[in-house]
Amino acid sequence: MPNWLLTRTKPSYGAQALPGTPVALIVQKYGGTSVGDVERIKNVARRCLETQRRGNDVVVVVSAMSGETNRLLKLVAQISNHPNEREQDVVVATGEQVSIGLVALAIQAQKGKAESFLGSQCRIVTDSTFSKARIKSIDAERIFAALKKKHLAVIAGFQGVDEEGNVTTLGRGGSDTTAVAIAAAIKADACEIYTDVDGVYTTDPNVCPAARKLDKISYEEMLELASLGAKVLQIRSVEFAMKYRVPLWVKSSFTDDPGTLVCQEDSSMEDLVVSGIAFDKNEAKIAIRAVPDVPGVAARIFGALDEKAVVVDLIVQNVSKDGKTDVTFTVGKADIAKAREIVKKVAKAIGAKGVELDDQIAKVSIVGVGMRNHSGVAAKMFQVLAKEGINVQMISTSEIKVSCVIHSKYAELAVRALHSAFGLDQAVAG
Amino acid sequence: MPNWLLTRTKPSYGAQALPGTPVALIVQKYGGTSVGDVERIKNVARRCLETQRRGNDVVVVVSAMSGETNRLLKLVAQISNHPNEREQDVVVATGEQVSIGLVALAIQAQKGKAESFLGSQCRIVTDSTFSKARIKSIDAERIFAALKKKHLAVIAGFQGVDEEGNVTTLGRGGSDTTAVAIAAAIKADACEIYTDVDGVYTTDPNVCPAARKLDKISYEEMLELASLGAKVLQIRSVEFAMKYRVPLWVKSSFTDDPGTLVCQEDSSMEDLVVSGIAFDKNEAKIAIRAVPDVPGVAARIFGALDEKAVVVDLIVQNVSKDGKTDVTFTVGKADIAKAREIVKKVAKAIGAKGVELDDQIAKVSIVGVGMRNHSGVAAKMFQVLAKEGINVQMISTSEIKVSCVIHSKYAELAVRALHSAFGLDQAVAG
Repeated sequence: MPNWLLTRTKPSYGAQALPGTPVALIVQKYGGTSVGDVERIKNVARRCLETQRRGNDVVVVVSAMSGETNRLLKLVAQISNHPNEREQDVVVATGEQVSIGLVALAIQAQKGKAESFLGSQCRIVTDSTFSKARIKSIDAERIFAALKKKHLAVIAGFQGVDEEGNVTTLGRGGSDTTAVAIAAAIKADACEIYTDVDGVYTTDPNVCPAARKLDKISYEEMLELASLGAKVLQIRSVEFAMKYRVPLWVKSSFTDDPGTLVCQEDSSMEDLVVSGIAFDKNEAKIAIRAVPDVPGVAARIFGALDEKAVVVDLIVQNVSKDGKTDVTFTVGKADIAKAREIVKKVAKAIGAKGVELDDQIAKVSIVGVGMRNHSGVAAKMFQVLAKEGINVQMISTSEIKVSCVIHSKYAELAVRALHSAFGLDQAVAG
Repeated sequence: MPNWLLTRTKPSYGAQALPGTPVALIVQKYGGTSVGDVERIKNVARRCLETQRRGNDVVVVVSAMSGETNRLLKLVAQISNHPNEREQDVVVATGEQVSIGLVALAIQAQKGKAESFLGSQCRIVTDSTFSKARIKSIDAERIFAALKKKHLAVIAGFQGVDEEGNVTTLGRGGSDTTAVAIAAAIKADACEIYTDVDGVYTTDPNVCPAARKLDKISYEEMLELASLGAKVLQIRSVEFAMKYRVPLWVKSSFTDDPGTLVCQEDSSMEDLVVSGIAFDKNEAKIAIRAVPDVPGVAARIFGALDEKAVVVDLIVQNVSKDGKTDVTFTVGKADIAKAREIVKKVAKAIGAKGVELDDQIAKVSIVGVGMRNHSGVAAKMFQVLAKEGINVQMISTSEIKVSCVIHSKYAELAVRALHSAFGLDQAVAG
């Protein structure tokens, strides 16, 4: 982790508050649906101002209006099949730029004070991995200067600037990371992620109607869920929150539901063996057949993928037979073409037999800190899947999760069966 | 004029060209209709690359896709009646940002090399008059660095950045100014303004079918025409071109017509007494009645307007009667509300009788360097208007133009009558 918190010096500006007012420094992040149209933007402005009127200092991070990033990516795709990512970032970063201007204007229209900041303006400096850049540092001083004037600081999510001044973006969901990174940089008391769902659920309610909202979840569990395809929060944002102990709330911008608190693990969480079930149909499986089993082969394959910024998820290597082994791994579907090209080249160079692709897969995972104290959780998962006649293609485990790759057509069935088997189904009221 | 050309040092990069190839440094500016959709953007890329393949170094300045700036301003208007101009600029500047990314991608898709630059990235530093900022300096080095690599430099028109790093915009048509200012800063051999018309016409062909295209026009005449409402070029861009002797071509991006050259006056131009006829229906007239005729009154009125960045066009002050005079002036219709508010306040303070508004006016003007050597041009204009029964409300003259404010309903009639009377009608072929 780079020393990206160099500028982290929280001044005692809270001293200006009225006596008796509990002043907190709060970062609120509003996603694309929350700023999806003019009325919703006005609603966001109202919520931010309410938070300020309760005596808090408020930093607002906003995403592009829903649909906008896709509209821009479509324009890019109409012009280029393999767009240069520097130029693509220039185009898609405009979505958040429009949002910050409009949110600042909406706050001002409601007699509030606000100032917008682009990633480049509050020096959200990233590396130069266009379209998937990582935050290296943030200039908290510029933000504090706005807060000192009792302005709401409205900051563009998703975007940053590299050392050379090029516009960068952080990848899908990057606004969450912007919000948490800012919360860490300014030592905020809370980071609230506003979205169109009212919290973190045991699984996707669209797939499993028995899913229920969690009041609290540990960083570790949330990290696994996010990694495994639950789209509530971007992984990097949870990593940041965990590392800098930022209390993270997932809330709806349309209700007053308290939402879900993502925080440090505590004793109450261990009652549940499994806290959530995630699934992901956005990956594809690539198998390299008959790879010579000599040292350095895996390094060559995954080094080449890493070099081109292809993110590999699960990796399984079978036991060697006749000095040959099969290496199988999964990548995001968006990276398939790129990955295939790279892997074919490497496979040829190392004398492997061939490369096979399968994009009809789903990864289903169970997650829970309670697993640490319970044995047999993985075995139970396999039994549940077997009972439904579902074949398991790949397995991956960690201390607090078990993932299985299965045929994509069984994904929903698997989720519902596991949700029920691990006792997560909602108690029926009445 | 500020010392905005501090960075003007053209290196001898032309030496790398093939022997015998005439290398020129050309700035091409493409307006909103020229980049109005994906196909047109590809067409622009093709034109830029053709220019480069002919041995030239090419800098491309682009506007927002047609309709985009209005779409963004509409979003702003839905949120705020009196938008803060800093935030409005943040929103509208995104239009050009999208264009430069897409044009750079289109050039790359056609196997060319291109690099996009925001106003902030090639340091187009302006003052802080948001929505109407003026360029103070440009960092030519960043542009030359791209050209040295044989990249096309694709630069966002219309936008800049102030000393504090705030995003600014230059006002409607500001991309022309960006193009000419860059051409001056890098000492370009030509600045080509591509638009949806194929040159500068003697008057608007939509109003006067007999209008014809000019091959050549002097800076001075173009400046008057632009000031008077001919929308081909932004005034500031012509000022820059005149001051730094940048040869300026107005061309169509849809044809191969050579267009109109805007350049220094030469002997051939003097044959025509009048070169063009302009009209403008976008102004309103404000009259302050019975103003005490004491020193400093005009300064108070127009100082107050200037302070709020209201641009005043014609000013007429009648001869004093009983120590009172009438002061009449015109402002852009967009500024009416602001101007009325300011003027009412000043009128009350100085003890004037009242303020009258009239937005049913048109300003019709004849322009020509040939007027310098001919007398009676203004008289002839008044006769032509009188013959058509058109009453003249205000008159303003300069060395090379005469403007009359008339009722707006007579605008088209006046233009056609003057066009014919001053011998500008197209010779009928055959």
